[in-house]
Amino acid sequence: MTKSANTMWGGRFAAGPDAIMEAINASIRYDRRLAPQDIAGSRAHAAMLAATGIITDNDAETIREGLLTVLSEIEAGDFPFSAALEDIHMNVEARLKDMIGEPAGRLHTARSRNDQVAVDFRLWVRDQCDQADAALAGLQKALLEQAEAGADWVMPGFTHLQTAQPVTWGHHMLAYVEMFARDRSRFADARKRMNLSPLGAAALAGTSFPIDRHMTAEALGFDGPAHNSLDAVSDRDFALEYLAAASICAMHLSRIAEELVIWSSAQFRFVKMSDKWSTGSSIMPQKRNPDAAELIRAKIGRIFGANVALMTVMKGLPLTYSKDMQEDKEQTFDAADNLMLALAAMTGMVSDMTANRDALKTAAASGFSTATDLADWLVRELGLPFREAHHVTGTLVALAEGKGCDLPDLTLDDMQSVHDAIRADVFDVLGVENSVASRTSYGGTAPAQVRDQIARWKEVIE
Amino acid sequence: MTKSANTMWGGRFAAGPDAIMEAINASIRYDRRLAPQDIAGSRAHAAMLAATGIITDNDAETIREGLLTVLSEIEAGDFPFSAALEDIHMNVEARLKDMIGEPAGRLHTARSRNDQVAVDFRLWVRDQCDQADAALAGLQKALLEQAEAGADWVMPGFTHLQTAQPVTWGHHMLAYVEMFARDRSRFADARKRMNLSPLGAAALAGTSFPIDRHMTAEALGFDGPAHNSLDAVSDRDFALEYLAAASICAMHLSRIAEELVIWSSAQFRFVKMSDKWSTGSSIMPQKRNPDAAELIRAKIGRIFGANVALMTVMKGLPLTYSKDMQEDKEQTFDAADNLMLALAAMTGMVSDMTANRDALKTAAASGFSTATDLADWLVRELGLPFREAHHVTGTLVALAEGKGCDLPDLTLDDMQSVHDAIRADVFDVLGVENSVASRTSYGGTAPAQVRDQIARWKEVIE
Amino acid sequence: MTKSANTMWGGRFAAGPDAIMEAINASIRYDRRLAPQDIAGSRAHAAMLAATGIITDNDAETIREGLLTVLSEIEAGDFPFSAALEDIHMNVEARLKDMIGEPAGRLHTARSRNDQVAVDFRLWVRDQCDQADAALAGLQKALLEQAEAGADWVMPGFTHLQTAQPVTWGHHMLAYVEMFARDRSRFADARKRMNLSPLGAAALAGTSFPIDRHMTAEALGFDGPAHNSLDAVSDRDFALEYLAAASICAMHLSRIAEELVIWSSAQFRFVKMSDKWSTGSSIMPQKRNPDAAELIRAKIGRIFGANVALMTVMKGLPLTYSKDMQEDKEQTFDAADNLMLALAAMTGMVSDMTANRDALKTAAASGFSTATDLADWLVRELGLPFREAHHVTGTLVALAEGKGCDLPDLTLDDMQSVHDAIRADVFDVLGVENSVASRTSYGGTAPAQVRDQIARWKEVIE
Amino acid sequence: MTKSANTMWGGRFAAGPDAIMEAINASIRYDRRLAPQDIAGSRAHAAMLAATGIITDNDAETIREGLLTVLSEIEAGDFPFSAALEDIHMNVEARLKDMIGEPAGRLHTARSRNDQVAVDFRLWVRDQCDQADAALAGLQKALLEQAEAGADWVMPGFTHLQTAQPVTWGHHMLAYVEMFARDRSRFADARKRMNLSPLGAAALAGTSFPIDRHMTAEALGFDGPAHNSLDAVSDRDFALEYLAAASICAMHLSRIAEELVIWSSAQFRFVKMSDKWSTGSSIMPQKRNPDAAELIRAKIGRIFGANVALMTVMKGLPLTYSKDMQEDKEQTFDAADNLMLALAAMTGMVSDMTANRDALKTAAASGFSTATDLADWLVRELGLPFREAHHVTGTLVALAEGKGCDLPDLTLDDMQSVHDAIRADVFDVLGVENSVASRTSYGGTAPAQVRDQIARWKEVIE
Repeated sequence: MTKSANTMWGGRFAAGPDAIMEAINASIRYDRRLAPQDIAGSRAHAAMLAATGIITDNDAETIREGLLTVLSEIEAGDFPFSAALEDIHMNVEARLKDMIGEPAGRLHTARSRNDQVAVDFRLWVRDQCDQADAALAGLQKALLEQAEAGADWVMPGFTHLQTAQPVTWGHHMLAYVEMFARDRSRFADARKRMNLSPLGAAALAGTSFPIDRHMTAEALGFDGPAHNSLDAVSDRDFALEYLAAASICAMHLSRIAEELVIWSSAQFRFVKMSDKWSTGSSIMPQKRNPDAAELIRAKIGRIFGANVALMTVMKGLPLTYSKDMQEDKEQTFDAADNLMLALAAMTGMVSDMTANRDALKTAAASGFSTATDLADWLVRELGLPFREAHHVTGTLVALAEGKGCDLPDLTLDDMQSVHDAIRADVFDVLGVENSVASRTSYGGTAPAQVRDQIARWKEVIE
Repeated sequence: MTKSANTMWGGRFAAGPDAIMEAINASIRYDRRLAPQDIAGSRAHAAMLAATGIITDNDAETIREGLLTVLSEIEAGDFPFSAALEDIHMNVEARLKDMIGEPAGRLHTARSRNDQVAVDFRLWVRDQCDQADAALAGLQKALLEQAEAGADWVMPGFTHLQTAQPVTWGHHMLAYVEMFARDRSRFADARKRMNLSPLGAAALAGTSFPIDRHMTAEALGFDGPAHNSLDAVSDRDFALEYLAAASICAMHLSRIAEELVIWSSAQFRFVKMSDKWSTGSSIMPQKRNPDAAELIRAKIGRIFGANVALMTVMKGLPLTYSKDMQEDKEQTFDAADNLMLALAAMTGMVSDMTANRDALKTAAASGFSTATDLADWLVRELGLPFREAHHVTGTLVALAEGKGCDLPDLTLDDMQSVHDAIRADVFDVLGVENSVASRTSYGGTAPAQVRDQIARWKEVIE
Repeated sequence: MTKSANTMWGGRFAAGPDAIMEAINASIRYDRRLAPQDIAGSRAHAAMLAATGIITDNDAETIREGLLTVLSEIEAGDFPFSAALEDIHMNVEARLKDMIGEPAGRLHTARSRNDQVAVDFRLWVRDQCDQADAALAGLQKALLEQAEAGADWVMPGFTHLQTAQPVTWGHHMLAYVEMFARDRSRFADARKRMNLSPLGAAALAGTSFPIDRHMTAEALGFDGPAHNSLDAVSDRDFALEYLAAASICAMHLSRIAEELVIWSSAQFRFVKMSDKWSTGSSIMPQKRNPDAAELIRAKIGRIFGANVALMTVMKGLPLTYSKDMQEDKEQTFDAADNLMLALAAMTGMVSDMTANRDALKTAAASGFSTATDLADWLVRELGLPFREAHHVTGTLVALAEGKGCDLPDLTLDDMQSVHDAIRADVFDVLGVENSVASRTSYGGTAPAQVRDQIARWKEVIE
Repeated sequence: MTKSANTMWGGRFAAGPDAIMEAINASIRYDRRLAPQDIAGSRAHAAMLAATGIITDNDAETIREGLLTVLSEIEAGDFPFSAALEDIHMNVEARLKDMIGEPAGRLHTARSRNDQVAVDFRLWVRDQCDQADAALAGLQKALLEQAEAGADWVMPGFTHLQTAQPVTWGHHMLAYVEMFARDRSRFADARKRMNLSPLGAAALAGTSFPIDRHMTAEALGFDGPAHNSLDAVSDRDFALEYLAAASICAMHLSRIAEELVIWSSAQFRFVKMSDKWSTGSSIMPQKRNPDAAELIRAKIGRIFGANVALMTVMKGLPLTYSKDMQEDKEQTFDAADNLMLALAAMTGMVSDMTANRDALKTAAASGFSTATDLADWLVRELGLPFREAHHVTGTLVALAEGKGCDLPDLTLDDMQSVHDAIRADVFDVLGVENSVASRTSYGGTAPAQVRDQIARWKEVIE
């Protein structure tokens, strides 16, 4: 190992890096995941070098074919990765040289590991944006199915985990469709912003070879070349932006996961999670631990932890490349893997869960939850000022509480004893079904509104 | 105070909140900053209530005029803020009632504090996106001025804080122009995404009043109403996205600040900071502490700390509004204030600083910094494979090192003793001026490229 | 202002710091909180300077008296703080000079702002450790009172928010007593570790004056002088350790707060929060929003956010003092204020809350929660291997579930139909009271164990 | 796999966990690292079960021997880990059952996975405290060797990265010895606080078996049993405290790493890093990239990121065990591995680095770095007030600056032209050697003080 390391660094070091240095320095243990991106980047580079006359067409073809062979070895699990060769770039190049000999030495012309790793990592993160988008679309569909089934199922709308007003199951599901739509939009914006090619920035200053950066950019699906070579090899804001979007998405996941945990409790029983996403007790049959929901709830920890980690790493680094930046990959890989896992599990859980309509409705109807409807009726129909209507309502609720009944159970006489202008049609707004049906303002919980939104989303989500 | 608190809550509580509860619960100490947004929102709401016939035109006019008076009191510093009234919304409404009497009680029709605070805070954050954009444009201009002045000043390009290749001052300044452009773009995307109006979501379920949410949305400059009332009052991802963008921007600021601190050291002397942005020692005249740069470097701490804080707060909150969310504002206010301060200070520092051209050039020329140029020449002109060219270059550098000279000081004989095909025109690439001039690839450090980019930016930045 | 600033810096700067620089640079807005510490430090320093003959006794006495006058002005709110004088140190010294003239100029002998701020801030943080300890003791007492009242009240013990086994209210309260005991211990350790005096480190190198650092250390309650002057002015790990302890404590608070929010829901009704710590709805009397619990739950955000902020600030700072470190104070102040507020509010909430014994017991008895007791009985009394006992228990539970009853409602025949060695005394372990009474292992939930622990804690907590 | 999973859960689930659930739920991929702790815990538990008569001595012996065989299989790499068996606990138990049959079923008596994982993880973290302590002692020794060699080598003492006063190399090294001593002390405190055994807490409530928790606690090296069974299985503050201590230590490492990066620059040249810890350029021999220092500097990111991750996970979790807590291990493992790696690399770097005495001294002497000494002399010898002495010094420095010389190069006449009481012995304090020698206050930079501290540390560090 020492020998090859020495070879690698041109014999300048009297002593080879020892085990500690290799352990802290070599990245091949994890950056092998960039192999497809590395090889795609090298193939685009080789084609461009030939097109601009910097190397021969023959050399380019040999290199490009050889790289495909290397890739197939890696994909087949046959590739002999070497820690002494440090990283994926050196591993691939060394293997290519074994295979094709001298032309391999021409591949690195007009390029450096600095722009090479920048392009590899950017391609990887870009792909994660696409994957997150697709997974989120799947989750939105699962939520829409739940929303459609229960567009008019009544449930409590909570504030402070206290019943506030009745809403519908469909409306609640749609709230998350909105959140995940913004998450998708954030990934899309991040993708667009990062989609400039660093290739050709070379070590940091650009190159004197007559390269065509637009050509490699296009070949790799970029919108064009990055405009400043120092910036191209120095910044990792694209990874930070991905991590920020992933963290916000994980925050949304933690909220629905928390709801599912609470709703699965014996006290709530709002939903029944599928066996697939729960674990049980061998002796307590009713115990259905919402493990998947809890694990998803926790994922914000490691995803946002990765965001903190990379932000801390990047703080105060002078331009251009510093070795600190090698810490960007493991954090991003781990965050992306866990985001995808959490999205898959949440999609499965949402698809498989069963709402308990009776429990939802019963809970919605308790606790004078239509008091607001009564107050609004007083304002709307009798023209009372808002604050006075609240006072009348409070008195009526106290009356009902004293009688041990709910608002719809009061008589009209009861009502009129508090405010004599109250009419019989007040009872139209006091049931939970009436309550939700009346919330017809745009984006409100009325089933008609909910169905409009479902229809809108169905067109948006392919 | 207990008395008014009791009044406020309709007398339901046997005991008023004591000092601790008020201290932890009341937000008026800081949310008074939302007064302009709160009043704008209320004025739009009143106009809409009249347009839809929910209140009379007269009431609406009285309310809208009264609100302007309240605003002018606040702006004049005459407003008697009350902690017992908890927040800006209650303070404004109570004052309005003092002024105009009964119509004030109609303002809160078809609205709740939940959508009210959501719209106020969103308007505030939206405004911060605009302010950050404007401040970043100013910083970009300052950097462009430096870039234009020094488009061809040679300085060392560093990797690992070791001289790697010569670059130009202009090129280095432009790297930051790129970073801050992406920051601007992030703020713009965040602004666009958050620009939907929560007003009309009411407590959480929408309302049965025939309100026109599109009208209020338009009046407040939103692109339309938010599509789901639960989501509208529940989420704070818009603030988290702002904080994420601010954190990445602060990361960029920390990098240039670190460079300025290092460059100001006696050992580097690359720049001289203006007196305005430094502090000195009363007895050590050469000591010029780069205080502003250090303070800016530190700002990433509190700005990203705010991001962590709000992310932690939002983790696992069930829908819809929970009081935890009251912690959103102080964090965002503090981050925004410090971002604006850091941007202003950095703009001033960049404008006022003086590059030390001689020191930059001397540093650029040391350390065989054009060895890469020599290797590239060998590849380009003699057709050597990249790795062989490196070997030849290494030998020549060793030769120069042995002679105690730099590469341009070797003779042609020296050169040819290592590789006999080397020609006299090799010397054309060995000076630092030649080196930078040769890096003509798109986005490279050649002064011509730098000037092209400056021209492009000048058109982009109004 | 420019004038005084110029004076302050000895006229070296051509231009005074403008408004931006003052805004970013001056700390007097917040570091005035250090006035008592600053004056205590200066008084100790003056006494030492006299004792070692560096200044006269007369000067020392004049200085020490003058400082007391300054302090009383500050405490009375009469002190004219000046932003141009930047910080509390310069403000105090300038005022002292106004009062006593020339001797004020001798106070700064053998001292620098670097060791001055280090000693001020360390004294402040040390005091916060003491305050947190006292507040935590109060909270422990409130929990112990709840524990004592309900040492044998049965409630569900949850895992995954699913009922797992019955436990007692007292036992649950004691769990938090343990956590807060560790928090106290962490603050105590932090206090002990930070309790070395930086005074006398001067700017960074120590001093040539014959000072007595042990004397000032003793006067200020330190265990001795810090051993290395560079370290003494450079590190802020004491503040980070305080913040870490505060963050862990806030994590504990967030857990009990979450429980209180869930327990206050209409679905759980395990506790009734006092009116003092809740807010209501003017029209929904049953709605009792657990605002204080939610706000406490959220405090982990800003407290840990402060930890992140200061950790980020300190990352990578070369020795010794850098201006970045000025960001230490606001973060620590805010975290400490909020920790104290959260502890006070939690103590009040715990003291004032009322457990709903019936709801707790009913919940504890549902869901075959004593299945584990049955399985343990089978192992203990019949000698079945653990895993077989679980199988038998599972069958019995299924039998009960089929009959629509709970385990204690099965007949002995039912029992024996599954395993014929089961005896009638099995029923002794199947009620929830029996279950908790049987958990007599050390630290277990048996009321006898709970009372032992209460007794132990009463002796520990003065 | 589905089959064994079904078996594991007693056949309650109609469908086995699919691939996603397994991926998110199974922990065996990483918790296999706990095998030694798991087996030690089980062996202690078995011995106690026999000692208390709960199982037979024969069974205990069979179990204990079988567990040793399992451990040897794991250590030999022969163990067939199964993801369907989820975690290390089930894997070990299943293998034990294969080996010894029925007695394996008795091992889990009076125990649960909840207390089992708590004890395993606590033992692991406790061991990491010991390992960190040992590694830090090694680093301290390396620093002490540097300090001893250079106890009187003069170098610049910096504030704001500007030369402030001369100090010694030994003094600077000792500053880090102090920091790492506090880090050791933090790990020691954390270890002591966590050193109570959760074993016997069972699922959460304790057990009705007559176990002896003191016996297992002693066997595993704990100071005793944890006092509350709910707390014992619920909290992870011990891991958070470890992570906080590790983060502060990583912060200290980031500071020395930053210094080494800056000191290695061509502009500073204060140290030469060994080849072992640097990488070079194949063609630029003077380029010696301080890779190890940069990587260590970055480690604060992932270590503190892990702290953030676990803190976020724990926020707001109700008692007792929630599956979220499974996320504790990977974060802690990764942080611990990276801390140990960073400590090893830093120890190697410090041991192998070479200070450039000439460069240090030259830098120390530049910039009027003894101006403070002059001012102190004026106070001490002539009795000038501190602020007046500064004024005189400033004038003298300006005089020297005007003459293009440093302070020691002024003549006595020059001196007396500014203040006529100045005597020839003033020159004794103006050289950097004199300056450092004069800083004899306790903990100051005088070589005598430095040597005293080295002697003290040598006694402390075994």
